[in-house]
Amino acid sequence: MTTQIRVGIVGYGNLGRGVETAIGLSPDMSLTGVFTRRDPASVTTVGTATEVFAIDELDRDRDDIDVLILCGGSRSDLPEQSPALAARFSIVDSYDNHAHIPEHFAAVDAAARPAGTTAVISTGWDPGLFSLNRVFSEAIIPQGATYTFWGRGLSQGHSDALRRVPGVAGGVQYTLPSEAAMERVRAGEHPDLSTRERHTRECFVVLEEGADAETVRAEIVSMPDYFEPYDTTVHFISAQELERDHQGMPHGGFVIRSGTTSPGTQQVIEYQLALESNPEFTASVLVAYARAAARMNRAGVVGAQTVYDVAPGLLSPLSPEQLRADYL
Amino acid sequence: MTTQIRVGIVGYGNLGRGVETAIGLSPDMSLTGVFTRRDPASVTTVGTATEVFAIDELDRDRDDIDVLILCGGSRSDLPEQSPALAARFSIVDSYDNHAHIPEHFAAVDAAARPAGTTAVISTGWDPGLFSLNRVFSEAIIPQGATYTFWGRGLSQGHSDALRRVPGVAGGVQYTLPSEAAMERVRAGEHPDLSTRERHTRECFVVLEEGADAETVRAEIVSMPDYFEPYDTTVHFISAQELERDHQGMPHGGFVIRSGTTSPGTQQVIEYQLALESNPEFTASVLVAYARAAARMNRAGVVGAQTVYDVAPGLLSPLSPEQLRADYL
Repeated sequence: MTTQIRVGIVGYGNLGRGVETAIGLSPDMSLTGVFTRRDPASVTTVGTATEVFAIDELDRDRDDIDVLILCGGSRSDLPEQSPALAARFSIVDSYDNHAHIPEHFAAVDAAARPAGTTAVISTGWDPGLFSLNRVFSEAIIPQGATYTFWGRGLSQGHSDALRRVPGVAGGVQYTLPSEAAMERVRAGEHPDLSTRERHTRECFVVLEEGADAETVRAEIVSMPDYFEPYDTTVHFISAQELERDHQGMPHGGFVIRSGTTSPGTQQVIEYQLALESNPEFTASVLVAYARAAARMNRAGVVGAQTVYDVAPGLLSPLSPEQLRADYL
Repeated sequence: MTTQIRVGIVGYGNLGRGVETAIGLSPDMSLTGVFTRRDPASVTTVGTATEVFAIDELDRDRDDIDVLILCGGSRSDLPEQSPALAARFSIVDSYDNHAHIPEHFAAVDAAARPAGTTAVISTGWDPGLFSLNRVFSEAIIPQGATYTFWGRGLSQGHSDALRRVPGVAGGVQYTLPSEAAMERVRAGEHPDLSTRERHTRECFVVLEEGADAETVRAEIVSMPDYFEPYDTTVHFISAQELERDHQGMPHGGFVIRSGTTSPGTQQVIEYQLALESNPEFTASVLVAYARAAARMNRAGVVGAQTVYDVAPGLLSPLSPEQLRADYL
């Protein structure tokens, strides 16, 4: 039996709650506590036994944490927290601002390396599992094209935009992969498809009393950037239906690579996620990478890491012997 | 630019030919030659510039090979060749006798470790990519069930059995995943499904002159072990159709894990391969792992390894910096 991996959660929104739940499903991991910027007394956790601390409790010397899972946002939390905390703890984050990942990596690496900590950045599913599949499939089929499709998934930004339309009392927006585009990719065509051509948008809208459905629909589908460039469908529903059927945070998508290994010989690799809860799934990926971070740190592998640097077996609670005997 | 990785191919059947072709698609790799037990003069290679050597040319000291890709069979070639060659070269093999992988690993490790070589065993797609997906998805969704479906794929053993039926002049058999079973798995049921319940069989048969189709069909579908336990369909075709439409070696399949991250919250991870050429695809996986083996050896990581031990970034010809900037 390996030593228990002791985890701290930094930040406690949907993602932090998901991490708390996922640790409960990992017998080799235990939760030291949640660290929050809010008043700890005001935080209600999923588990009744979970301890909640003020975030500055992390400032004192601690020997009860092997790895911190950072559950803040990529816009303002992680650029600051990840390097600051990596200077004292091994960490995992889900930094997802694709264009700024190299900077983030450099900042975290500069903090982690002299401190002898291990920091796995940008985990989750995109970046994360989807990134892995893009690299695996391109390394194996170098001659081909890779397509990422997102959905069916709730889009927070587009739902917000929808709710700002006059006459809309409430609503949500889902992004869907275009079935027609996916079929072309699977058939081995290498179509030149923009993000817009790969996706459609579906809106579920509750009208304000007296609002005209056709006017609202026209307003939505013609909204520049958000809906106008897409094939957008608007469904009108009751407030009760919105409450009953649209409270989840589903997401997912597809990474499809098609290519040839010799002239005319088509090979297709497809990876798909169908998630009923985006934050809970992302949290589950973070927890698996936290296990890897703790193990890499014990093995003396320090500094910033990405999913490309982590040997897959390190994610599993099982031993290398068990994996070889039962999973290969 | 990294130093070129110099590869030798041991054994030259369909798999060896696929490796030769795949190396041609990898600008960072070059082919030292094919090593065969046959008379080298009798071997015609895909590439006109490929050199062919007798296998005992490997017995002399060589400084022109970074890694050998072993393309022999799992029954008698690899159990002998992998340890013997790992004692002098870094190697990659596709040993696929699942039940004996731990023994094979131990034998190869015992040879490779003192020699300072790196030996990645049991790569390909199953074992290999499917094994990876089983471990990734179970590590991320610990509460759930994983299902592997094979097909649509040509089965050599079943095609041979088919051709032994009286009245059959020729034919092939394809294994198909059961769509009904896959839908149950995707829907989050965790059905208890045997290999037989997960697959159906489809036969394409050319009758001998004068043979009675109904008698042949009855004989095939009632064949114990091979066809009787399965939902088997028999199509009768002409010799011309067999020649025209059934010369490929397609294969593939699905690894699907469904589970919950909290009560009632379903998450599904699905990985799919649709391969027009099984040997060419397996060869492509071997070549990517040969790249990783050469890099691990340069980095001082020696001994036997499996796909669980290989950091995904090592499979790609791109640098870690490029991967972080362009693929995360």
